[in-house]
Amino acid sequence: MDKDYQDPPPADLFDPEELTKWSFYRAIIAEFIATLLFLYITVLTVIGYKSQTDPAHSSDQCGGVGILGISWAFGGMIFVLVYCTAGISGGHINPAVTFGLFLARKVTLPRAFMYIVAQCLGAVCGCGMVKAFQNTYYNAYGGGANELAEGYSKGTGLGAEIIGTFVLVYTVFSATDPKRNARDSHVPVLAPLPIGFAVFMVHLATIPITGTGINPARSFGAAVMYGKDKAWDDQWLFWVGPMIGAAIAAFYHQFVLRAGAVKALGSSRSIA
Amino acid sequence: MDKDYQDPPPADLFDPEELTKWSFYRAIIAEFIATLLFLYITVLTVIGYKSQTDPAHSSDQCGGVGILGISWAFGGMIFVLVYCTAGISGGHINPAVTFGLFLARKVTLPRAFMYIVAQCLGAVCGCGMVKAFQNTYYNAYGGGANELAEGYSKGTGLGAEIIGTFVLVYTVFSATDPKRNARDSHVPVLAPLPIGFAVFMVHLATIPITGTGINPARSFGAAVMYGKDKAWDDQWLFWVGPMIGAAIAAFYHQFVLRAGAVKALGSSRSIA
Amino acid sequence: MDKDYQDPPPADLFDPEELTKWSFYRAIIAEFIATLLFLYITVLTVIGYKSQTDPAHSSDQCGGVGILGISWAFGGMIFVLVYCTAGISGGHINPAVTFGLFLARKVTLPRAFMYIVAQCLGAVCGCGMVKAFQNTYYNAYGGGANELAEGYSKGTGLGAEIIGTFVLVYTVFSATDPKRNARDSHVPVLAPLPIGFAVFMVHLATIPITGTGINPARSFGAAVMYGKDKAWDDQWLFWVGPMIGAAIAAFYHQFVLRAGAVKALGSSRSIA
Amino acid sequence: MDKDYQDPPPADLFDPEELTKWSFYRAIIAEFIATLLFLYITVLTVIGYKSQTDPAHSSDQCGGVGILGISWAFGGMIFVLVYCTAGISGGHINPAVTFGLFLARKVTLPRAFMYIVAQCLGAVCGCGMVKAFQNTYYNAYGGGANELAEGYSKGTGLGAEIIGTFVLVYTVFSATDPKRNARDSHVPVLAPLPIGFAVFMVHLATIPITGTGINPARSFGAAVMYGKDKAWDDQWLFWVGPMIGAAIAAFYHQFVLRAGAVKALGSSRSIA
Repeated sequence: MDKDYQDPPPADLFDPEELTKWSFYRAIIAEFIATLLFLYITVLTVIGYKSQTDPAHSSDQCGGVGILGISWAFGGMIFVLVYCTAGISGGHINPAVTFGLFLARKVTLPRAFMYIVAQCLGAVCGCGMVKAFQNTYYNAYGGGANELAEGYSKGTGLGAEIIGTFVLVYTVFSATDPKRNARDSHVPVLAPLPIGFAVFMVHLATIPITGTGINPARSFGAAVMYGKDKAWDDQWLFWVGPMIGAAIAAFYHQFVLRAGAVKALGSSRSIA
Repeated sequence: MDKDYQDPPPADLFDPEELTKWSFYRAIIAEFIATLLFLYITVLTVIGYKSQTDPAHSSDQCGGVGILGISWAFGGMIFVLVYCTAGISGGHINPAVTFGLFLARKVTLPRAFMYIVAQCLGAVCGCGMVKAFQNTYYNAYGGGANELAEGYSKGTGLGAEIIGTFVLVYTVFSATDPKRNARDSHVPVLAPLPIGFAVFMVHLATIPITGTGINPARSFGAAVMYGKDKAWDDQWLFWVGPMIGAAIAAFYHQFVLRAGAVKALGSSRSIA
Repeated sequence: MDKDYQDPPPADLFDPEELTKWSFYRAIIAEFIATLLFLYITVLTVIGYKSQTDPAHSSDQCGGVGILGISWAFGGMIFVLVYCTAGISGGHINPAVTFGLFLARKVTLPRAFMYIVAQCLGAVCGCGMVKAFQNTYYNAYGGGANELAEGYSKGTGLGAEIIGTFVLVYTVFSATDPKRNARDSHVPVLAPLPIGFAVFMVHLATIPITGTGINPARSFGAAVMYGKDKAWDDQWLFWVGPMIGAAIAAFYHQFVLRAGAVKALGSSRSIA
Repeated sequence: MDKDYQDPPPADLFDPEELTKWSFYRAIIAEFIATLLFLYITVLTVIGYKSQTDPAHSSDQCGGVGILGISWAFGGMIFVLVYCTAGISGGHINPAVTFGLFLARKVTLPRAFMYIVAQCLGAVCGCGMVKAFQNTYYNAYGGGANELAEGYSKGTGLGAEIIGTFVLVYTVFSATDPKRNARDSHVPVLAPLPIGFAVFMVHLATIPITGTGINPARSFGAAVMYGKDKAWDDQWLFWVGPMIGAAIAAFYHQFVLRAGAVKALGSSRSIA
């Protein structure tokens, strides 16, 4: 062997032993709590911003955190929560990330399924807490729900969600690649920070179009608590788009960058 | 042993030898100075912001640092000060953090008590310096004191403080877990940065509700120097909330994530 | 040998074997995709910001991400993308960086040429996607194109591009210096973060003058999609300036800081 | 020996051999270039911001980078430049830092003197370039000079400079302490980032009072190019304050935290 790293073997589709370990259930709890905290902090920031700058209640229209502050809230929380839960559950906090890692055979099917359930429940609870704390403002200010903005077609919204999720999941794959450590001593491995920044960047770019989903649990939790028709009508966008984006990222990483087949043929021939 | 890490033994409740070492007193001094600098920089930012954007003194109402800048001041100072004092005192700078680490048996009772006293004194001195430097504006602009905003119930304020402190203390536990280094080579250990970001995030979300305490020393120091009734009437919120939040985080980390009892039973059985 | 590090040998001008490896083509694909994502996110942020704050469509003129948010988008994306592609292609994403590294004999001529072609194509595609998604606003809001602002001479614009690119390419050389790891245990090696920050800083400073190019592919892609005369008339500035800046940075690093000749004479004499 | 780290021996006051090495002159060049770039980027950001939001030239009064953006420019450039020059010159870029490290016997007197000269010259050149590029606006918008704001006493200004520089130099000492690596495996060593953040924080807090100096070269360079009486009348503040702050930080670190004398007595006794 001339490789100085080792890919872990692909995860089995089912792994019955996994279900007998406390670490499996602990991971599900950690995903639930992390997604709850993610929605709680971010949607509270959105609602708080809107109440700060509403001319009806405030004379300081410039002091609010702005779209820049909201983008920081989403990206910064992902940084903190991926940092905190990476060692417990892998730090997904997002069904699209779980789906991408499942396609790449990094997690088993029962684990992927249970993570997604836990993430959606956590998101509902997190938004519920914001609704309880901000009951005067929650519905008035849109409940943090993802909706397609006026003037944009469904195709544009779907495209924005696909590419945004691609940026995120591509960063996740790059940051957790086992080749990384071995190959590039000049590329340090601070995975949670670039993952958080990827989320921050996508929010700066696509808040004006869709409010930025790129996380079906986030869109689902807000829609459940907000409950207006428009949020439900557009909901499919925030599931289909991220899942497609995650699948493309998994494909790009596994088949182009890591290049299973091609490398085995082309490269090893030129070495030999 | 199949573990590649080692938990340090729990701290004794009292450790008489500790009191004979210079490193104990040095740690108390470091906590005092760090909390002083924390309050000095953050409250000065708050007061400076309000004077910049006061229509009575300024024509540039939008140039101030805004709530986003204030949140950066709180989060960024915690990053810097935890980085600077981590090796001296553990870098608590917050009675709720000290309390959480005491519950988890990471520090002795005399150390916890002396840290909290030093933090409160440091906060009073830091706010006192701001009051001296900004004597025209300090009282006019609210003295950086934590108060429940109009329109929110005491229950909401308490809830916001509990969850906000939970986010912070959960991050502290995650960042300093001895299992971390050993287990996840892909999760680097830059503890002070996510801790600072956790503080930044909570400020973005809860400044509109309570001004964001999540640090009883910070709320206490500002109340002493500001001295208005409202700040004292709400003061209990900013002690009870953070202490409950820290306790829940300690419980969550020790009993769910590290899972003393359950793991000992469940997991070791499945390994055997 | 008394050196504890090793400079890799300078790259050949041509390396025929390189062309037979999949890793060469994979690197070109990675540069294409990364530059596409870079332009997509950043130009979308620029256009979105202008639509948010246009008094014709919005009543919240202060909530937009502002020039600070735009600067974050450029710097943050470079951080994320250098992090993701460093191990695949070296993470250039910028013809000026490729040119500087070519001058310093870090990459071969065919690689440099193919990277620059891939970067320019990626930038065109990235801007094209923004134009498709924002068709109502793209041309109305300037298409994210780099132009010399009114009131500044061509000399000032050229100077701003030269120094801005110098800051970036100097940081790239500093971050990837093989001496670094060995020499300074107190200077950690988190290359992508300071590189991203360098881009962020230059945008804060020179957006009012040229809109900040410092990346010929970025200026080219936006000009192709925007297609107005002014963007093409100034285009030479955004190629000549960055290339000069990159060349000065390569010279400064190789001949002053690493000091080939002088060190060989002066220093080794004093050691002997 | 029971210590797992080693303090380097204190620097000699004079070291004649040092003057015969190229690395000495290279370090001076690096300090000159770094301080030039620091002033160029930061003062250009200040002037650009004021032209963006001047109602006479712009209708978008909210889009400018604001005091938050200016603070980022100062802090972010220090992060980038300390990162880039740490291995060449130690990355001071500030006479107060050089003075503090000289007091702590980390650098020789000739090195300290030459660094300070290079920093001041670099700052003058950096401001000169901004003046040349922004000739219409440079003097109109205050030239980036440090002056005591109206309504604050000289004592307040001096105090703000002392404490601000203390925060910076204390962070520098903490970040470069050789004990650090050995003692705290959970405190990673990313020195340039907290140093940059310390500068960022102090700017958020004291821009309204003095414009924030905490770097005599920065204040000197701007005063030379701006050349108005007020900037020269207050100039002493921006030398005396930072030097006092740096001296206190050196004292605090060496005699309290590292505790030469006391530790030798107290601690070793308790170990024995």
